[in-house]
Amino acid sequence: MSTYLTILGYNSAIPTITSSPTAQLLEMEERSFLIDCGEGTQVQLRKAKAKFSRINHIFISHLHGDHCFGLPGLIASFRLLGRETPLNVYGPKGIKEMLETIFRLTDTHRGFEVIYHELDKKHSEKIFDDKRVEVYTIPLDHRVYCNGYLFREKPKERHLNIAEISKYPEIEICDYHNLKAGKDFVLSDGYILKNESLTTDPETPVSYAFCSDTRYLESVIPIVKDVDVLYHESTFLHDLKDMADYTGHTTALEAARIAKLANVKKLILGHFSNRYSDLSVFTDEAREIFANTFLPEALVTVKIGN
Amino acid sequence: MSTYLTILGYNSAIPTITSSPTAQLLEMEERSFLIDCGEGTQVQLRKAKAKFSRINHIFISHLHGDHCFGLPGLIASFRLLGRETPLNVYGPKGIKEMLETIFRLTDTHRGFEVIYHELDKKHSEKIFDDKRVEVYTIPLDHRVYCNGYLFREKPKERHLNIAEISKYPEIEICDYHNLKAGKDFVLSDGYILKNESLTTDPETPVSYAFCSDTRYLESVIPIVKDVDVLYHESTFLHDLKDMADYTGHTTALEAARIAKLANVKKLILGHFSNRYSDLSVFTDEAREIFANTFLPEALVTVKIGN
Repeated sequence: MSTYLTILGYNSAIPTITSSPTAQLLEMEERSFLIDCGEGTQVQLRKAKAKFSRINHIFISHLHGDHCFGLPGLIASFRLLGRETPLNVYGPKGIKEMLETIFRLTDTHRGFEVIYHELDKKHSEKIFDDKRVEVYTIPLDHRVYCNGYLFREKPKERHLNIAEISKYPEIEICDYHNLKAGKDFVLSDGYILKNESLTTDPETPVSYAFCSDTRYLESVIPIVKDVDVLYHESTFLHDLKDMADYTGHTTALEAARIAKLANVKKLILGHFSNRYSDLSVFTDEAREIFANTFLPEALVTVKIGN
Repeated sequence: MSTYLTILGYNSAIPTITSSPTAQLLEMEERSFLIDCGEGTQVQLRKAKAKFSRINHIFISHLHGDHCFGLPGLIASFRLLGRETPLNVYGPKGIKEMLETIFRLTDTHRGFEVIYHELDKKHSEKIFDDKRVEVYTIPLDHRVYCNGYLFREKPKERHLNIAEISKYPEIEICDYHNLKAGKDFVLSDGYILKNESLTTDPETPVSYAFCSDTRYLESVIPIVKDVDVLYHESTFLHDLKDMADYTGHTTALEAARIAKLANVKKLILGHFSNRYSDLSVFTDEAREIFANTFLPEALVTVKIGN
């Protein structure tokens, strides 16, 4: 019950033989979240040995092809694989019209429901919330309406120290819930057993922020403050700052600045323009500002947090 | 100026790590025709080292995802690569609505025109005709409206025998056109030089028929009569004939029967159900009826004709 990130693809615009457009699989507290879905994502998921049936939530940052053209095929494959579980799709307003038009015209009958969560707010909002995880939008500034996403584990339950608990027959199994929640236990003689004596600390909740396709935008900083890992696009190096602004993208230096100002623990860059063949220039530039910067590694699953 | 076929993908339904959905590149008389365009086709085209800019005509058999989900991404990439030449897209009625909806919602601005040729006829019709090539539809019987396509080289011009022609100063360059067309030359003294003495035979025109996703259908036979190569789907072996009928597909035995009755020179099978791992069972079954049957080889370019 930890959090793992598998970057399935990270190149911009045109798929090539060696690299795929944006898509990531975030497995947080046993939930499988797919983030963006460029063309070919379903094959990348197969390469990553991901379980298709566990993906119940797909988050699309924006409706540019390199972030969503893999969606119709993935959903059609879900059907062919016999899926019955509802699928939640989060993305900009218009995503429902696009997918439903495609499904109608391509005769894609679904045996499961697609629940659309169309986004159009300009401020950050919570769009997913269950017992263990919450997800917020990160409004971005691209050529079209675009959101990043912030994924947070909720504070976890404390671990029971059974050896200690068993010394007190008064503590019954039905009391465990309160102990996990951090409450002290009051014995019948009025003596208070401090929670810390009966439980141990849980793992620290981790957080992951995905910022795709945006101009340098300081309003991102408070939203991604202190996250364990920030993925931030850096399509260009800073000598092409004008090009970045014009096309609605960020430079490596700027991404590093966001990481530094937000005090994140680790920065992963991505969405590089095809003009760069040696990607180490991106980390070289970013590390001048924020040392703990890394290049993405496709199909490598990394644990987030300790 | 010959004809070459490159099968880019030939599996049915779900893309896998090792195989791609239907797409083929037919290069006939220097025209590049793309036939079907499943997800990932643009990467397969790159692997085949195909020139994107030469593809001016795309023929889609039917609007099932495994035959068309690569189209939005390919067209978006054409734009990013700076295309200005118009693109002709042939396919079932509805293909325009699907693509234009996607382009509108994904903000895909095109610097070139997409000319849609929407098909809805139940009989074979000529849909492309230029100096050297003609293309006809092959109406098929699938779960949705579906056409195969027949590509024919036109009769070619005769080759000039310059050594022989140069013996007659009366024959001028402006006469060559008539000689290539097979006409005799009349000297000023009335003597007739037979065309065969001044020219040699051209290459025999070749033809290629693509039959994708159909039940066994004998009305195909007169249309594909005598073609050099017939690609015909055979999703199942004949022991699953009921399944083939139900899902709108053909068995290997039936594809071979079509090939035999149409007197084609060579049969290539394809669109195999994922349930088969060893594909040689398809040629084993088909060769009982039609010996010159082959499995497709992805990304291998083969010359059609001699």
